[in-house]
Amino acid sequence: MTRQKSDEQRKQQIRDAATRCFVRRGFAATRLLDIAREAGLSKGGVYFHYRAKEQLFSDILDAQIAAIGNRWSFEPAADQPAETTLRHLLRAHLQTVEDNPDETRLTNLLVSMAVQEAEFRSKLEQALTAMRSLYAGVIERGIREGVFRAGDPTALAQVILALVQGLGAHAALDSNGKLPLRVDDVVDDVMQMLSSRVEPAGATSGAN
Amino acid sequence: MTRQKSDEQRKQQIRDAATRCFVRRGFAATRLLDIAREAGLSKGGVYFHYRAKEQLFSDILDAQIAAIGNRWSFEPAADQPAETTLRHLLRAHLQTVEDNPDETRLTNLLVSMAVQEAEFRSKLEQALTAMRSLYAGVIERGIREGVFRAGDPTALAQVILALVQGLGAHAALDSNGKLPLRVDDVVDDVMQMLSSRVEPAGATSGAN
Repeated sequence: MTRQKSDEQRKQQIRDAATRCFVRRGFAATRLLDIAREAGLSKGGVYFHYRAKEQLFSDILDAQIAAIGNRWSFEPAADQPAETTLRHLLRAHLQTVEDNPDETRLTNLLVSMAVQEAEFRSKLEQALTAMRSLYAGVIERGIREGVFRAGDPTALAQVILALVQGLGAHAALDSNGKLPLRVDDVVDDVMQMLSSRVEPAGATSGAN
Repeated sequence: MTRQKSDEQRKQQIRDAATRCFVRRGFAATRLLDIAREAGLSKGGVYFHYRAKEQLFSDILDAQIAAIGNRWSFEPAADQPAETTLRHLLRAHLQTVEDNPDETRLTNLLVSMAVQEAEFRSKLEQALTAMRSLYAGVIERGIREGVFRAGDPTALAQVILALVQGLGAHAALDSNGKLPLRVDDVVDDVMQMLSSRVEPAGATSGAN
């Protein structure tokens, strides 16, 4: 049991070091030896757990995908109005993007690697599908509740995912991975995009 | 004169081949020899114009940045309502992302490389700045015209840019670079986000 746990800790240590190497040098330029050095281990110490960097990268992505479900598992239990839940979810999502710059950078890297290999494309698809169904569920509820405008929940979820992805990409410009916009402002923008409360055209209100 | 032109054509041919190599293999894994083969040239034929792939990559990005101004130069002359101009601009932008998959993939690659090197970071910043000021100008006009809600035009432009970037990233999942959403639907979503006639969902007002 203790041995098992220590194995998992060691693997986590290797995955963290690998993430740093991949985002700083790129995948192709990273060797197992670089990862071992970054982790403060011998090459054999890494090799014992991971035979190839491809396997390591794949494992890191699987851990990320698994984390999605755990992080946002509060949603299915939500007894709050859909708009409150969506604000919650989006805020948490954006905050995660900002608070975990290396993970965000790895997602950016995955996007360029998805073009190169079907396996990476399918990992990206998996991560997006998990997040998309999370968002689509809340949006669908909000449409039923009448606070969100009628529309295809999956398509609207896709817009939100693209926005978060793009903000994460632009965070690459900041050395600390800070987003280019305030989280609360982005949440407000999205709430307006989804809102069902539109004044009819031509209803020029007195407040002009 | 003829020689000059043929030089420029040859360089364009090399840049196109390099773009394909970079997005398919990654930057680090691409050698000048690969680019020469892709272009159907000898290594010397490439080397005569480009001494290093870094220079080539940089040149490709400069060409992209220069293209931004040319492509959307219709805006400053616009005598249409801001709403029409913004629809135009965003539609053209998204269409360009979809119609030029390799260029889009190169932008995705640039994002992951921006983390690795200050030079690439500054190229990405340059491209974003050019597009941002284009959008911000139209948005500012729309706010003055009363069709867009009050807000910071630059921040709103940034939201749009992030959305387009993210959609371009998710287009990596499609082998033909197709966007995950219909262009017109995205344009409508953005227009609602900016509209002065929409209240954000959850903004506590009497209309509860």
